[in-house]
This record gives sequence, structure tokens and C-alpha cells, in this order.
Amino acid sequence: MAGSPNVFPIGKLSLLLAVLQEHEWREEVEKQLTEQGYKYTIGRVGAMDMTKVVAAMETAAKNNHIIDSNSYREVHAVYHAIIEAIQALGRGVTQFGEILRTVGLTFAIVRGKMEGAVKHEGEWIAVSVYGTIGAPKKGFEHEAVGFGFNHI
Amino acid sequence: MAGSPNVFPIGKLSLLLAVLQEHEWREEVEKQLTEQGYKYTIGRVGAMDMTKVVAAMETAAKNNHIIDSNSYREVHAVYHAIIEAIQALGRGVTQFGEILRTVGLTFAIVRGKMEGAVKHEGEWIAVSVYGTIGAPKKGFEHEAVGFGFNHI
Amino acid sequence: MAGSPNVFPIGKLSLLLAVLQEHEWREEVEKQLTEQGYKYTIGRVGAMDMTKVVAAMETAAKNNHIIDSNSYREVHAVYHAIIEAIQALGRGVTQFGEILRTVGLTFAIVRGKMEGAVKHEGEWIAVSVYGTIGAPKKGFEHEAVGFGFNHI
Amino acid sequence: MAGSPNVFPIGKLSLLLAVLQEHEWREEVEKQLTEQGYKYTIGRVGAMDMTKVVAAMETAAKNNHIIDSNSYREVHAVYHAIIEAIQALGRGVTQFGEILRTVGLTFAIVRGKMEGAVKHEGEWIAVSVYGTIGAPKKGFEHEAVGFGFNHI
Amino acid sequence: MAGSPNVFPIGKLSLLLAVLQEHEWREEVEKQLTEQGYKYTIGRVGAMDMTKVVAAMETAAKNNHIIDSNSYREVHAVYHAIIEAIQALGRGVTQFGEILRTVGLTFAIVRGKMEGAVKHEGEWIAVSVYGTIGAPKKGFEHEAVGFGFNHI
Amino acid sequence: MAGSPNVFPIGKLSLLLAVLQEHEWREEVEKQLTEQGYKYTIGRVGAMDMTKVVAAMETAAKNNHIIDSNSYREVHAVYHAIIEAIQALGRGVTQFGEILRTVGLTFAIVRGKMEGAVKHEGEWIAVSVYGTIGAPKKGFEHEAVGFGFNHI
Repeated sequence: MAGSPNVFPIGKLSLLLAVLQEHEWREEVEKQLTEQGYKYTIGRVGAMDMTKVVAAMETAAKNNHIIDSNSYREVHAVYHAIIEAIQALGRGVTQFGEILRTVGLTFAIVRGKMEGAVKHEGEWIAVSVYGTIGAPKKGFEHEAVGFGFNHI
Repeated sequence: MAGSPNVFPIGKLSLLLAVLQEHEWREEVEKQLTEQGYKYTIGRVGAMDMTKVVAAMETAAKNNHIIDSNSYREVHAVYHAIIEAIQALGRGVTQFGEILRTVGLTFAIVRGKMEGAVKHEGEWIAVSVYGTIGAPKKGFEHEAVGFGFNHI
Repeated sequence: MAGSPNVFPIGKLSLLLAVLQEHEWREEVEKQLTEQGYKYTIGRVGAMDMTKVVAAMETAAKNNHIIDSNSYREVHAVYHAIIEAIQALGRGVTQFGEILRTVGLTFAIVRGKMEGAVKHEGEWIAVSVYGTIGAPKKGFEHEAVGFGFNHI
Repeated sequence: MAGSPNVFPIGKLSLLLAVLQEHEWREEVEKQLTEQGYKYTIGRVGAMDMTKVVAAMETAAKNNHIIDSNSYREVHAVYHAIIEAIQALGRGVTQFGEILRTVGLTFAIVRGKMEGAVKHEGEWIAVSVYGTIGAPKKGFEHEAVGFGFNHI
Repeated sequence: MAGSPNVFPIGKLSLLLAVLQEHEWREEVEKQLTEQGYKYTIGRVGAMDMTKVVAAMETAAKNNHIIDSNSYREVHAVYHAIIEAIQALGRGVTQFGEILRTVGLTFAIVRGKMEGAVKHEGEWIAVSVYGTIGAPKKGFEHEAVGFGFNHI
Repeated sequence: MAGSPNVFPIGKLSLLLAVLQEHEWREEVEKQLTEQGYKYTIGRVGAMDMTKVVAAMETAAKNNHIIDSNSYREVHAVYHAIIEAIQALGRGVTQFGEILRTVGLTFAIVRGKMEGAVKHEGEWIAVSVYGTIGAPKKGFEHEAVGFGFNHI
């Protein structure tokens, strides 16, 4: 994606939002999101049960009006972006509890324009998750990242 | 991962390094990497051919002495972290050119300690990739992210 | 598959049977199935739980004598064809409820000869499923198709 | 999907179009497609090389104006539906030539409304493939089916 | 599988045959294979190209008359057992050269009866592979095992 | 792996240990394990629930001091080797009960040196599983094998 290196594109914004939660840089990230008209939400979920992870993200997108929960098109678009992020998180195995993994995640969902080498019409949705994956024992975990993207 | 929100753990450092390449925040990221004794490298690769992507990352890790290229243990560790990052990038399909996708990626490989809720002994390796994935036509692409992790 | 375009091969018969359930063309499909000596069964299953989907199809094959339920060879053959159909239905993720998907399916299992460019000895089994996949909310779903095949 | 059993929904239309190519019922399928305002195209491709299969389908969608080839949104939507259909076709392994399989396929791509239990706004795209998969030796092949779906 | 612990079932025979190639125990394994009427073959293949691995195994099964190369049923059965063994070998990624892995394998294909808790009618086929997988550099590799099974 | 054909490398030792449980050759396998300083353990588990299989293997490795249960590095290494073995066992689908499969397994976990064409520094871990996979009905099952490997 071209443009000024100081203006982040949609995917990078979602990733930084998930990653910089507690850092002072978060302010600048949220400033860009607001000034450029993106809709976004942030949430947290900890679970061994993948259903809870998917539901937490989908519910956050609906309740914070990132998507219109009455529009199946929009639900379909965000759902596939969520599943992509979870596939990335699991790196080859789309399972958590079944293989004794637990996750503790911060997620960020951003919706809006995509500008890069070309300015694309319409809106897009980026889903980023950042957190830990590991055994259900404190400290027996490492960082994990997932990212999904779709047109909406 | 606990600790001060201003001190990034190893995975977050690799991710920010890949994502903030051209941004002024990169300086702070590299400062933390250096001060805390991590080894790291950054590279770029653009290809439809997955072999080139794997080779570019493995070669960067060897040539920049992130790993000892004469130690199979270290090569094995970084190789699996690279494959994890590529699986995440592909979201369910570990193929690029075969399904007409091309990628343009910045990657960052970081090696060092892992401190979180618990301080873990030994060294770990984090591989982050950030860039675009899409059709082999300018602008017909969107952002993509991959992350892999291993003990070394 | 060669032959007259009006005589359907085994896989196409199973697919049309699943798809044309409530359509007048179903009669012609069943006529071909009967006249050419195929064994077949049709069933329906709606579930978030994949175990129920697999069990419904396996039970239908046994209870309607498409396979001999005392022969492990035959159970093995139909089982693998069912799993193939479910893999196709899920398109990359073999999970339903775990990722908050529910399915409403009509399935058709056909057993018999395979004639095409060459006439093959022995019997084959085709499993087709057609229906909807989606969120557990009325109307928030779209069509889905799965197909599996094996020698028996 | 509810409605009259004689009016086929979009996915079923694409499937019947791919399957009934040479059958007299094709006329009725095309009549419904035309009368209800769907855009559609049919094509054939035979290859061991998956790139050729993806390219043939994508090119057909563009050249026959099912999608606007200048819109990345539309290219992105049809691309993911094609990959889903190919994942379904391969049943767990998204490879053809690499594992010595060759395919001979008829594909149908349909774009338009989706009406079911609920009438959904906007347009959707369904991709169906039907044909044979097998060894590169005449007659050493069996039928295969793939189906992908997306919002557009 | 029950029975005397000194009489190996079909899968174990194929595995021991692949693993004990150069060991004196091989004699006992081959004695059991012969006395109990199994057909079997052993071969070697080294490649980065998966096509060569599949072809070497399929050709060995045909040329050594483990299967009838004119029977598509038998070719289909052994093909799926080979693909299963390769999926097992790759542990989640069915690719070798594309991700810079090379393999050096001994394979054993055994056809015959299956006797266990129950005596099953008909014949079955077991495919075992044993060898190394790793980087294309001497010594930068570790052991790998694959196993596939089917009715024939 | 080179060396004397009568001295088994680590992976082969784990595989023979799992496979030869009740056979007189087991003595020779255990002799080599002991004389060459490997740590090893053997266990059994039968379940439809994958969580139980993973837990049984992980617990055996900890309780028998193959790994240090207080070291996350070691837990991480053996966990990934276990998941690899289970992926191999499932051949493309990492699920048991969900798709109505049950497993009855003997597993062997071996830790120690790896000597082959080159003598590698450090320790490695090999996980082998051998047993049956099938329907939850006595005798409706066939043999299955899984193998995973990692540096530790």
C-alpha cells in the first residue's frame, strides 16, 4: 500500500489497534481512524472454546454498529473475515480446546475505505487478533496473531 | 503478556518491526530490540512462487546471524516458525502462484528472551510478515499478515 | 463421462436427487435410478453438531440397505465418501457448530455401476448433500453443496 | 431456501447449469436465469495445472461481464468463490497435478439476487463445477463436484 | 488388533517392512508376509517434487502386481492410501519442494487380509513410508513416517 | 540416517517401541534405548475425545520425566510433536469424535540425541502412536500410525 508512511491503511490500523491497546501510540491510531471516517471496535475474549471466540467478535461487530446486524450480506462478510483471522491464529489447525489450547485475545475490527496503489470503491473490513495461545496454565503460552480481510 | 505496556514482548516487537518499516515509530521499536539484547533482521520479498518466499526469509535469518546456519537445530526452529507465518498468511491454503496469488511482503525475524507472566528460560524466535496478497495486477490486492513462533 | 446426455452417470444422479427433491424432474431421476439397478436413499438432517450429520447419513445408508451394515468394508467405503462430502461442504474447515455454523441438508446416497469413457467393473458409491449453511438465525444462511465418491 | 419448488434459487441454478449442459432440461434452467435477471456464464477447462483452472474461471467471469474486471471488489468476491469451489472439488487437498490428478470440468458462474426464507438485499455469486477428477489416463477418473458462494 | 503378539497384522507388516529394510528382523517380516499370502513390494524414492513420490509408489504397486493396473477400482484404492501416507508425512502441509523440503523415503505396500478382533472379508491395502524430510542439505533433515490404509 | 543398520535412530526407536509392545523384539529396542542414554515412556489411551488423547500423551511425558514439566520450552516442544503425530494419525482431518471416529492407541515418546549423516548437537523428541481408528463398534476399525518430531 502506497501513500504517506504516516497514514496507515485499514489493515495496519486494525493490527496496531489490537497490538497497542495499552500503549501511548494507541491515541495516534485512534485519531487516524476517527479523522478518516473508519468505524471500529475493540474487545477481549479468553476461552478454550472456539465458539466463544467467534461469538465474542461477531457480537462486538454488531453491538458497536460496525455492521448492520439485520443485513445478512454484512454478517456474511464479517463472519468470513473472523474465520480467516482464527485460521491464521491456529496456524494449520482450527481448534483450541480440542487440542488443549486456550487463547487470551484482544481483537480489533475496522471498517471503511481501502486506499493504496489504487483507490478502491466501496468498503472493506479488517479483523485483527493479538494475544496468547498455550496450555491452560499461567505462563505456559506464547504470543499469537491473526488477521482476516474481506469486502463488505 | 504482563509487564510495562511500554516494553513490548518479542512477538509484538517482530510485528511492529514488519509493520512500521517506514514510520517514525520504528526507531523506538529498534531501540527496544537493541537495548534488550534481541537479534533481529528485516527483509522484503515479492513473488508468486512460495519457494522464493521461504528461501528469502531463511537466507535472511542465516546471513544476518539470527541463527547459526551450521546448526540444524536452529535451522529447524526458524523453518517451522516461517512455515507457520506462511500458513497464517494464506489463511487455509498454503499456496500462492498455484492459485494465482502474488505476495509483496516485509518480514521481520526476532530472536531472544520471552518475558511475560513468567520469565521463560532460553531463547525464542518470532517471525512476522506484513504486506499485500492479491492478483498479479497493480492495485488488485489487499493487506495480509502472518506470524510464527518457536523455541530455539 | 461419455454416453447419451440423457442417461445420467452415478454421481450426477446422486446430485440431482439431492437437489431436485421437491421438483417434478425428480421422477425422471428416480426412474433412471430404478431402471438401471442403482440402490439409493434420500434423507434430511439439520444440526450444528457434525456428529449428527455424519450419523444421519451413515444410518440412512445402513437402514435402507444401501450398504451391508455388517460389512466393515462397506461401512469404511461409505464413511470416507461421507467425510469427503462434508469436507467439500465446509470448504476448508471441517467444523460447523464450533465456528457457529448450522446446516440444513438434504442428502442422497447412490450405489451401483460406473459407466463412462470406459465401463468399470464393480460398484461405486456417490454421496451428495445440498442445503443451507449459515448462522443459527432464520434467513442468515446460503446454499451449500458437498460431494463424495468411493469404490465399494 | 423456501419459495416454489419449481423456482430454483441462485446456487441450485448454477449447479444445474454445470450439470445439465447437454441435457434438454438446460433450457428450463437458462429460462429461469434469464427471466429473473441473473447474469451467468458457462465454460470448460481440462488441466493438471490448478493455475489454468482458476484462470479459466476468472477470465470467463470477466470476459462475459459477470463481474466488472476493473472493480477489485468484484474480482475479490468471485476469486474467493472460485477457490471455495476448488477446495470442495479437491476434498481436503487443494492440489491437482502435484499429486498426479487431472481434472476435466464444466463450470457455471451465476450472479444475482438471493431469495429464500428472507429476501436478501444486494447481489451474490455462485460458482459450480462438475466434471471428472482422476489419473491422467482415459477412463481412470470419477465424477467430482465443487461449489463456492459469496456476496458481491 | 488381537491375535498372537508374534503374528503381525497387515498395517504393522507394512510399517516394519519399510522401517527394517536393512535389519536382520526383515527376514522374519518377509516370512510372515509370504506364509500368510500377502502381496507386497518395497521401493525407494528421493525427491523435492511430490509428483515423483506419488508416481514412484503407484508405479511400484503396478509393476510388482500388487494391484491390477488395468482395474480403475484397484488404482483408485491404492492412490487414496498413498495420498493418506503423504498427508501423514507432511503433517498438515501436503507440499515438499514448494516449501523447500526434500524427502528420502523407503516405502512398503502390502495387500491382503485383515484379521483382528473380527475377521474381515475381502482384501485391504496398507502403505507405509519411512525416511527423512528436511532441507536440501546433507544432514539437515530428520526422520519422518507416513501411513495410509484402504479397502481394495 | 546412516550408521550401522542394527543401531536404530531416535525416530525408528520410538516407532518400534509403539509397534512392538507385546513382541519379543521389544527387549532389543529397550536395550538400545537404555544403552544409548535415551529417555522414553510408553502409554495407552482409547477415546473419541481428542482432548483425552493429547492430555494422556502430555501427562505421560511429564510424569515419566521425559520433559521437565516446569519448563515451558520443553512442554512447547513435546506439545508440537504430539500435535504432529495426531495430524498424521487423522490424515487430513484433525478430529475424532466429531466425525464419529474412535481411537485405541499405544504411544511411545523418546528423547535424546540424533545421529545420522551428521551428528547433531542437543536433544530431540520423537512421538509415535500406533493403534486402531474406526467406528465405535468392535472390529469396525483399522490400523493407524502417527509420528511427530521436534528439537527440544
